[in-house]
Amino acid sequence: MAEASINIPAPLSPEEAQTLADATAKAMYARDNATQSLGMKIHEVRPGYARLSMLVRSDMLNGHASCHGGFIFALADSAFAFSCNSRNQTTVASGCSIEYLAPGAVNDVLTAEAVEQSLAGRTGVYDITVTNQHGKRIALFRGKSYRIKGEVIAGLDATALAKAAAVPAP
Amino acid sequence: MAEASINIPAPLSPEEAQTLADATAKAMYARDNATQSLGMKIHEVRPGYARLSMLVRSDMLNGHASCHGGFIFALADSAFAFSCNSRNQTTVASGCSIEYLAPGAVNDVLTAEAVEQSLAGRTGVYDITVTNQHGKRIALFRGKSYRIKGEVIAGLDATALAKAAAVPAP
Amino acid sequence: MAEASINIPAPLSPEEAQTLADATAKAMYARDNATQSLGMKIHEVRPGYARLSMLVRSDMLNGHASCHGGFIFALADSAFAFSCNSRNQTTVASGCSIEYLAPGAVNDVLTAEAVEQSLAGRTGVYDITVTNQHGKRIALFRGKSYRIKGEVIAGLDATALAKAAAVPAP
Amino acid sequence: MAEASINIPAPLSPEEAQTLADATAKAMYARDNATQSLGMKIHEVRPGYARLSMLVRSDMLNGHASCHGGFIFALADSAFAFSCNSRNQTTVASGCSIEYLAPGAVNDVLTAEAVEQSLAGRTGVYDITVTNQHGKRIALFRGKSYRIKGEVIAGLDATALAKAAAVPAP
Repeated sequence: MAEASINIPAPLSPEEAQTLADATAKAMYARDNATQSLGMKIHEVRPGYARLSMLVRSDMLNGHASCHGGFIFALADSAFAFSCNSRNQTTVASGCSIEYLAPGAVNDVLTAEAVEQSLAGRTGVYDITVTNQHGKRIALFRGKSYRIKGEVIAGLDATALAKAAAVPAP
Repeated sequence: MAEASINIPAPLSPEEAQTLADATAKAMYARDNATQSLGMKIHEVRPGYARLSMLVRSDMLNGHASCHGGFIFALADSAFAFSCNSRNQTTVASGCSIEYLAPGAVNDVLTAEAVEQSLAGRTGVYDITVTNQHGKRIALFRGKSYRIKGEVIAGLDATALAKAAAVPAP
Repeated sequence: MAEASINIPAPLSPEEAQTLADATAKAMYARDNATQSLGMKIHEVRPGYARLSMLVRSDMLNGHASCHGGFIFALADSAFAFSCNSRNQTTVASGCSIEYLAPGAVNDVLTAEAVEQSLAGRTGVYDITVTNQHGKRIALFRGKSYRIKGEVIAGLDATALAKAAAVPAP
Repeated sequence: MAEASINIPAPLSPEEAQTLADATAKAMYARDNATQSLGMKIHEVRPGYARLSMLVRSDMLNGHASCHGGFIFALADSAFAFSCNSRNQTTVASGCSIEYLAPGAVNDVLTAEAVEQSLAGRTGVYDITVTNQHGKRIALFRGKSYRIKGEVIAGLDATALAKAAAVPAP
């Protein structure tokens, strides 16, 4: 159980929250070598939500010729990270569990969808479902998050966001 | 709770069991692209036990500049796989959980030690501890295994093992 | 990952499956001292689904004056048991995890709703959500099931069910 | 991963720490209706450690005539609570997982031993092993703790402890 909330930022409008989520995801991805080197693509990030995909490469296969559990986990874990950091407050995993439902094969495209189930004080719970290109469920992942000090994009606040959002895209 | 045991192979001597564990690990590693591509080294495999290590490379860092949880998980998961397949009976993960205790940094050498806690019928429980080069604990991983049909090295049995063990290494 | 399915019973019509679920729940409850002594009520059982409730009594409080986690777990665990046994095939828990989101207070009425997420071969995954009388989520529980030999109601089959279903209730 | 430690109390001598652990356990037990009503006995509490036992009563049996998992969980959970509160800082469970290894039968005496695996900042990890009277392992439980504000015995500090310890028992 989490303590009572602290450090609550000023409430954002839905548009500001989405702008913040997009900017945070972009900044995180730019410095996240792991997510990049595994070839993950970010399809959608919203406050408390993320959807990523990854192609199962041959160098990801284990000795049973199916995708090594560590890579399925890594995809889910990245979706978890993008969802729980989507409010620009630095948040890390405290623990995770995964249940494997079906194997992943080479050339499968796996999609991980992360949904926030709870967020209270510093701690949150996120459920991530991994499916393949046929919609078959490959794994269920549950992540527990812990917010630490700091922001993903230091100093970014609602005012800066409002300005950023007001600038028409080129 | 697992059902009563089935398909129990003839008991092996400790020496045969160790020969089988070594042969199984060698065969698994040869076809495990994932474990190889992540640069893992296998230091020791015994029946129900495995110890592996991995260097944290810069392409394994996440957006917080520490080792992406997926790679810490992958190391633990490989140690789990080598320990639960060490009797040459094909065994897969049904589920795993990980608790992160401290971050891994670039150039750290992480070691995962897998210990069998329970094996009954088709299911087992394994505890894997991940430490860094200073002996600091980085993560605790618990894996649940499920034995399926088949053998890692098809057809390898005690008789073949006895012969193999009798042949002096070149 | 579970092996390919075995021992698949003849498919039942939705009505037969529901009759079987109801009969199984009734038989389980009659011999389940724990569920009875904790005052749990069964509100609905369907194939792969169950919904139960429990009043938080003063003898269920821990040293922090909130409901001892063991009782929240027990409620979720019973909902899990009724859902995973709902097809009359004896099924036990192999492992469970629970995340506590908010405390339960004395005189709260907690409801646990169990939903089957996966069932393949002998193993299944079930998600149970525990809420209080205000709809606030108290805990998230994930249960892994393992089907063993035997039936909850020994010998009950589709033919017997069809007959039972054909008899008008008095 | 937990943030850097905060609110660290003055270090206690081993004797003071043990006196504090004993006093905390006594105070917790006195107001813990759940632990009392389940007939649990506290055999030993040390800083970060607890050992409790419980008799499996007939009202704890489930529909399979073995101990309902909720009661095995409750015993482990109480051992977890006594171990993680043993330093008199109010600490609650954020999440737990349990793996069932073997069933408990009526009249079994189950013992839960809780060992602290990690404690950093506000969060900790504890492993609890449940065995029966024959030393057979019944379940493995892993608990994640979260320290909140407050003390189990409000205002108890090292000075008071020193005085308490100096008073000869009657």
